[in-house]
Amino acid sequence: MPGARKVTITAIAREAGVSVPTVSRVVNGRADVAPETRARVEELLQRYGYRRRAAPGDRAALVDLVFNDIDSPWAVEIIRGVEEVTHASAVGTVVSAIHDRSGPARQWLNNLRARASDGVILVTSALEPVLHKELHRLGVPIVVVDPAGSTTLDAPTIGATNWAGGLAATEHLLHQGHRRIGFIAGPPRLLCSRARLDGYRAALEAAGVTGDDRLVAQGDFYHRSGFTGCNTLMELPEPPTAVFASSDQMALGAIEALRRRGLRVPQDVSVVGFDDLPEVKWSSPPLTTVRQPLAEMGKLAARTVLRLARGEDVDSPRVELATELVVRSSTAAPGEG
Amino acid sequence: MPGARKVTITAIAREAGVSVPTVSRVVNGRADVAPETRARVEELLQRYGYRRRAAPGDRAALVDLVFNDIDSPWAVEIIRGVEEVTHASAVGTVVSAIHDRSGPARQWLNNLRARASDGVILVTSALEPVLHKELHRLGVPIVVVDPAGSTTLDAPTIGATNWAGGLAATEHLLHQGHRRIGFIAGPPRLLCSRARLDGYRAALEAAGVTGDDRLVAQGDFYHRSGFTGCNTLMELPEPPTAVFASSDQMALGAIEALRRRGLRVPQDVSVVGFDDLPEVKWSSPPLTTVRQPLAEMGKLAARTVLRLARGEDVDSPRVELATELVVRSSTAAPGEG
Repeated sequence: MPGARKVTITAIAREAGVSVPTVSRVVNGRADVAPETRARVEELLQRYGYRRRAAPGDRAALVDLVFNDIDSPWAVEIIRGVEEVTHASAVGTVVSAIHDRSGPARQWLNNLRARASDGVILVTSALEPVLHKELHRLGVPIVVVDPAGSTTLDAPTIGATNWAGGLAATEHLLHQGHRRIGFIAGPPRLLCSRARLDGYRAALEAAGVTGDDRLVAQGDFYHRSGFTGCNTLMELPEPPTAVFASSDQMALGAIEALRRRGLRVPQDVSVVGFDDLPEVKWSSPPLTTVRQPLAEMGKLAARTVLRLARGEDVDSPRVELATELVVRSSTAAPGEG
Repeated sequence: MPGARKVTITAIAREAGVSVPTVSRVVNGRADVAPETRARVEELLQRYGYRRRAAPGDRAALVDLVFNDIDSPWAVEIIRGVEEVTHASAVGTVVSAIHDRSGPARQWLNNLRARASDGVILVTSALEPVLHKELHRLGVPIVVVDPAGSTTLDAPTIGATNWAGGLAATEHLLHQGHRRIGFIAGPPRLLCSRARLDGYRAALEAAGVTGDDRLVAQGDFYHRSGFTGCNTLMELPEPPTAVFASSDQMALGAIEALRRRGLRVPQDVSVVGFDDLPEVKWSSPPLTTVRQPLAEMGKLAARTVLRLARGEDVDSPRVELATELVVRSSTAAPGEG
């Protein structure tokens, strides 16, 4: 009766005269193994054709999708895009959250080691450098979805055109006749914050509008900072007639701040966001915003990781998908009310 | 050199003198196999110890979480709850969508067959009866998360207390002094729609308020129907002073309808929703709503499916977790403006 014969780590350990954990350490490329031991184990691994990863015909049929937090407003869009591609390829999508902390991240890495994975899609910018390294050692293909433009990982990366989005939103307000346009910025440590701000400034400059640093409020992409940032802007001696909040959550915070001040959107003040989260078409009023193609980014990440898993090459180390202005009801010409 | 010896379906097929698909059909419990063939194949499967599913000590370390559509506003909360429990148990969560169509559903079932799974959590009410049956035949533990109260599956089910939620929301409006309270209902075919409506009617009756059928508008839980339903209510000869929309999406539609009519929430009309989706704390005004504990439902589903995977019993075939009224800024006493 024929059957698949596979050498096990236990068998290698027995033949090498070492413990099973020692063989595991060698397999996983860990440093804490004596050089002679490592050489002996590696020779046996090679002689018996031990493969940590499944061979092409015998793949795990699983891809890992890893977030910092699943409650991120981005998460569901990216999951949807990834799943659509993997599902059609008969590959399962394992979704995990590592919560930016080393405990869950290490747990996740252990879970990953305990079973096979054809590849990992990281939607996170804060994975510890040590974990980066271990992932590379495991030899599993990695693709990064990085809407924030903040990764330092040496892996194919999929982002979005943040600068062009900042430009388009500001041009839209300029075309409507606004000249005093407030901006609520994201966290300065993220490249995407800077790119959106630069796009805003480039549009003003191209239109011959003099910049005013007081019109730029500092935020952190979250709702609360849009609320307070908008209040700061509206308390200026000469407040803006439009506010470009560089995330949708901050835009919703700005709309609430304006409502509480008795100001109507868009009759009194126009508001533009950035992201196009699924729910902002249901805000009151429906939000004009810059669409990040999150589901498409997920799809491209899935296609890329499946190509890498098949041993194929990837065209470009970093791809930026186009953002797009979506005009709804939160913007109008100044003084239209 | 010792190695793990595993019998394959191909080998069984060769020895039995039948095709590989025939052996697969026997393994998967399908009916379309001649009785003698089935007996011969089953004898060989048993003789060589073929196991379709992994044995207890050798589990897949994977749980499947299956949605109709991942873009459902519920999805991310449930994923978050499930992942928190599975992650801590070193089990991966494979997220899939079957899109309510038989093609992808069958694809999903094939994907599931191609690898092991310790259990399936279904967040869907529309899985084809044929697929139900096949899942049962596969012998994989199933748990249903069923916020809509619509399942007919013979499996442990986790829901929420819809009737009590409908009661609590209506009592809140009554306590604020409202007497003409509109209701926007969900799809009549879902039990949860009926339960929420019955809770609304029970609260009115307990307060001695005469019901008025014209105050009940038909919706379908989606945004658009909240918008049109609210317009219908406001055009009554004696319009309501408060609207209880029995889903958050419909409540956001109602708020937008009121804004377009120049009515302020809550000064002119109060609005209550149902679900407590993550984004409604950022609506303008922040929404008073009935919280469905979706993440907790996901956690309980994960714990239940892991118990079933270990061969343990489940206490109760159907558990309903408590809903809870969350008071924010979309409700006030009538005439307060």
